[in-house]
Amino acid sequence: MVYIESKDNNLFKFVKKLKDRKSRDKEGMFILEGFRLIEEAIKANMEIEYIIISRDYEEKFKKFFSENVAFENKINVFSNNLFSQVSSTENSQGIIAVTKKKNYKYNLEEGNFFLVCDKVQDPGNLGTIIRTAHAAGVHGIILTKGTVDIYNDKTIRSTMGSIFYIPIFYDDSNFTIIKNLKEEGFSLVATSLKESKNFFDENLHGKIILAVGNEGNGISNELFELADKKVKIPMPGGAESLNVSIATSIILFEKVRQNLINL
Amino acid sequence: MVYIESKDNNLFKFVKKLKDRKSRDKEGMFILEGFRLIEEAIKANMEIEYIIISRDYEEKFKKFFSENVAFENKINVFSNNLFSQVSSTENSQGIIAVTKKKNYKYNLEEGNFFLVCDKVQDPGNLGTIIRTAHAAGVHGIILTKGTVDIYNDKTIRSTMGSIFYIPIFYDDSNFTIIKNLKEEGFSLVATSLKESKNFFDENLHGKIILAVGNEGNGISNELFELADKKVKIPMPGGAESLNVSIATSIILFEKVRQNLINL
Repeated sequence: MVYIESKDNNLFKFVKKLKDRKSRDKEGMFILEGFRLIEEAIKANMEIEYIIISRDYEEKFKKFFSENVAFENKINVFSNNLFSQVSSTENSQGIIAVTKKKNYKYNLEEGNFFLVCDKVQDPGNLGTIIRTAHAAGVHGIILTKGTVDIYNDKTIRSTMGSIFYIPIFYDDSNFTIIKNLKEEGFSLVATSLKESKNFFDENLHGKIILAVGNEGNGISNELFELADKKVKIPMPGGAESLNVSIATSIILFEKVRQNLINL
Repeated sequence: MVYIESKDNNLFKFVKKLKDRKSRDKEGMFILEGFRLIEEAIKANMEIEYIIISRDYEEKFKKFFSENVAFENKINVFSNNLFSQVSSTENSQGIIAVTKKKNYKYNLEEGNFFLVCDKVQDPGNLGTIIRTAHAAGVHGIILTKGTVDIYNDKTIRSTMGSIFYIPIFYDDSNFTIIKNLKEEGFSLVATSLKESKNFFDENLHGKIILAVGNEGNGISNELFELADKKVKIPMPGGAESLNVSIATSIILFEKVRQNLINL
């Protein structure tokens, strides 16, 4: 157990920097906050580098981690003041973990059901999408350039732990991953508010990539041009649009539904 | 145009109180924040009692409202300090409107597609549900006792204006409205994580009430006992549950899908 009270401490400075995406990208690490999420990460075999507990919560959490040899030399107790500077929540539970990102290599033979998030901006929306995709049995999520960081604290919280399980791939600005999948026989199905074809009339059996876009602008033109099928979700009521995480859930679970019925 | 700078001003005190549900319930009024929402409310013929503009934004909004006789004697300019005390957003647009609640009387002959929200707690979830229900063409939303206030500022924002259009009814603790609908031939379909019947196998044609429950506990036992059909959304992936607004969207749009196909 190490006690840290100085703002010049290297670990404190390191963790504080991880609140910025740039540092997370560079270090390949991110911050998990709250006991439940950390417990979930341990269950999912995520690599935890540091456990950081605030002074007020030392007694509460010490036992759990000191009983586990995997955390020997990894537990640090920050003064309440330092802890409040690395925490992102208003009512903190007094514990965070610095965790290594998982690096997924995509393997075309693993799975036939992908989701593309194209420039989704809101951290909560992306987190909810990850959780929903996990429930729907999506084999991987492809993020285009310009999508919000999945290691944002709000995104992580909204995933409710699903972020530890679902493979996530970063496509480049040429959509290389998506183009490769298309060459392997995948159909890219893009949703838009402007199309006339009803999404529910689409056959979603087989190798499918479903794509959703940015909150304000939808799917970018460059990606839309790659689509094999362009569809809209019918909205018989008066609202003009759906929240992007809602639209995503509707299309993902239509594939779930079709998978459950015989051809 | 009235200029208000004193915290003893009656209008200021009145508006400040409307931030609490109790006062909103008592007065039958609520606060709308931001120009876009207010514009939407005007389009939807909501009754606006007061327009309140912060001093810094007076020039920006004066023209729009002073050109409209409907707002004569309704425009008040608050000092920036007073305005910040009635505003609920961090980056305020400098304008709010005190608006009368709509009172809907439910008419069994109007519509065959209802949604029940049973003790939904998160304001953002409820707002997203209202927006999605509006898009799906739901004829009315029934809220049970213990559901978060729809006039919470976060709920209103998440509805994106749909709150002005969809009839919302408050049931009592005996579920009188729901029981009446059942007597009129409505089927109450309740979702739960525990049921074995696949929701997608359910016939949703005809008079249907779909019900969703609290974020942590699902549908309350009392309501669940009234259900004619008890179903679960199949989740082939690893996640254990869905966000309540996501689960709602999946069941609402399955009814939309079934409505579009022939029997």
